[in-house]
Amino acid sequence: METRGPLAMSQCLLLLLLLLLPYTYQGLAPGHFLPTQRPQDPPELHLINGTGQEPVTIMIFDINKIIKTSSSFELRTWDPEGVIFYGDTNPIDDWFVLALRDGRPEIQLHNPWAQLTVGAGPRLDDGTWHQVEVKIHGDSVLLRVDGEEVLCLRQVYKTVTNKPKPIMRIALGGLLFPSSNLRLPLVPALDGCLRQDAWLDRWAQTSASTQTGLRSCAVESQSGIFFPPGTHAQFSLQDLPQPQAESWAFSLDLGLQLAAGTGQLLALGTPENPSWLSLHLQDQDSGPLLSLWAQPQGRLFLGAAPGEASSASFCVDGLWAQGQKLDMDRALSRSQDIWTHSCPRTLGNSTDTSH
Amino acid sequence: METRGPLAMSQCLLLLLLLLLPYTYQGLAPGHFLPTQRPQDPPELHLINGTGQEPVTIMIFDINKIIKTSSSFELRTWDPEGVIFYGDTNPIDDWFVLALRDGRPEIQLHNPWAQLTVGAGPRLDDGTWHQVEVKIHGDSVLLRVDGEEVLCLRQVYKTVTNKPKPIMRIALGGLLFPSSNLRLPLVPALDGCLRQDAWLDRWAQTSASTQTGLRSCAVESQSGIFFPPGTHAQFSLQDLPQPQAESWAFSLDLGLQLAAGTGQLLALGTPENPSWLSLHLQDQDSGPLLSLWAQPQGRLFLGAAPGEASSASFCVDGLWAQGQKLDMDRALSRSQDIWTHSCPRTLGNSTDTSH
Repeated sequence: METRGPLAMSQCLLLLLLLLLPYTYQGLAPGHFLPTQRPQDPPELHLINGTGQEPVTIMIFDINKIIKTSSSFELRTWDPEGVIFYGDTNPIDDWFVLALRDGRPEIQLHNPWAQLTVGAGPRLDDGTWHQVEVKIHGDSVLLRVDGEEVLCLRQVYKTVTNKPKPIMRIALGGLLFPSSNLRLPLVPALDGCLRQDAWLDRWAQTSASTQTGLRSCAVESQSGIFFPPGTHAQFSLQDLPQPQAESWAFSLDLGLQLAAGTGQLLALGTPENPSWLSLHLQDQDSGPLLSLWAQPQGRLFLGAAPGEASSASFCVDGLWAQGQKLDMDRALSRSQDIWTHSCPRTLGNSTDTSH
Repeated sequence: METRGPLAMSQCLLLLLLLLLPYTYQGLAPGHFLPTQRPQDPPELHLINGTGQEPVTIMIFDINKIIKTSSSFELRTWDPEGVIFYGDTNPIDDWFVLALRDGRPEIQLHNPWAQLTVGAGPRLDDGTWHQVEVKIHGDSVLLRVDGEEVLCLRQVYKTVTNKPKPIMRIALGGLLFPSSNLRLPLVPALDGCLRQDAWLDRWAQTSASTQTGLRSCAVESQSGIFFPPGTHAQFSLQDLPQPQAESWAFSLDLGLQLAAGTGQLLALGTPENPSWLSLHLQDQDSGPLLSLWAQPQGRLFLGAAPGEASSASFCVDGLWAQGQKLDMDRALSRSQDIWTHSCPRTLGNSTDTSH
């Protein structure tokens, strides 16, 4: 059952798939072995780098020296979409991608014998470690997740000789061509970590480049979106569902898990006037935001701030805090002019006064 | 079938129920009549006044002069809870309340023969006009909604003579005792409007007091909560579901339908430091917030404002705008340091730098 031993050299497509070859074929039989931690394993590797969508590591292999022809690793992520690794002998007509889409593994493959996009297997974006292996068996590519075979692609592989340029590239966490060149494009960036990774044959590896500024995988993490100090993102309002002119409404659901420091969290506006509607955090000397709940004086204020000469008027179509619908009739205190269960259809002079 | 004609005078409990007596008994038989608009009808009446939970109108009737013994009106509200009207001959042991709870009619009644709390009928808090009638038939109280009988309370009524103080009070939109004196307390304020209302016998009415500063019912309205300029409300954080110390999170779902002017919309804080986390509206010269969507430059900004030296760091457990989940990987632009799908479990020194 072993596939050890030198492969036929100078193959074209094969080399693309070499990275998929199993370390042994034992994995296909009952009683397959699962790798255990070895002291010389490299540390955990984050798949996001500080400069963009590029791979965090690019390895180059001499095809003629490859004996071990499988790749395996453990992956931990909350991200449902992105590239785990890319491999090619050339980026035009002999490439392979293992990615996540909707949380599940997806293989995209392009070579003279097969061009395909296949998703299979369980969701892996649950924040726990999953073991992944990719292998070749005859003309097939096999994908195993947590010891279970989840995909077998048949008739996608042939041994080819006369490879003019006997190198193979493997890139982690990104592509070596534009994302639009994929058969089915996706966003390559994958907010996840690898460990116990073994790529083909370490003795066949001729060079490796690793980006600097990688994030640490040592921090204990949870699901969410984290903005370190000073970071920002922007979306075009035209990419969001359009409010109807007739019944305009803007809804925002913000689940804040951690917050510290002072600065803006969110705003609607234009680059010239960026704060038409803005959410601002201001830590006080008495502690972080969390400590508010420990104080009997902790309040959720709606409308004008105490002492503020506000001209703002607004209508909200329901207001939930902590998943509980706020009932104005049960406010600690409130202005009696608030319309507790109705709104005018338009804002005009008639709506801010009584008759 | 008619009940017209003088009732037995000086009844005790009866008088409480007089306000329930039908204008005619035709309503119980097929082919009942529904009132139509008459030129002399008073204008629509809002049940909320500018000073608190008190009734907007209190009417006093001379029991001995009452001939017509029913009450009917049309009600329009989006408010699921509140008092429509209260009546008594005395507030201790002879009172009646028609209210809404969870959007449906509820009668609370306390007299020597019956003490009960009964809910019945369809939801009325849909913002459309509903016709409501309350009647007596023998020892029963009948409630009709939109021409259908929805409740018949039997054995709750007897004719009593020797009433020492022959007056009856009817209060609209509030109670004449503290809400805690109800059999099952509710929040009396009802954000709704009445029209075509006929209370007992106008010839038996000896006086009426009406609060000033009532809201207009003429404004076309929709469901929601409306804050006119300068209004405010506050909730104690301790009345909201508590965040867990282990996995603190604050979620807020704000559906903004209309907004204009400049001022604070929402904040977390204490009375001394009211703006730890604050949402602020600032109308710009170029138009109201709505106009942002018409501009190609309209943006949703997350994190630090352009040019702002922000020290704020935060984690959000999902972010929805207009019901669409925002995917950081699809931002127009963003800082590469953002953790797009994960957060540290705590905010510390290790989380804002890479390794």
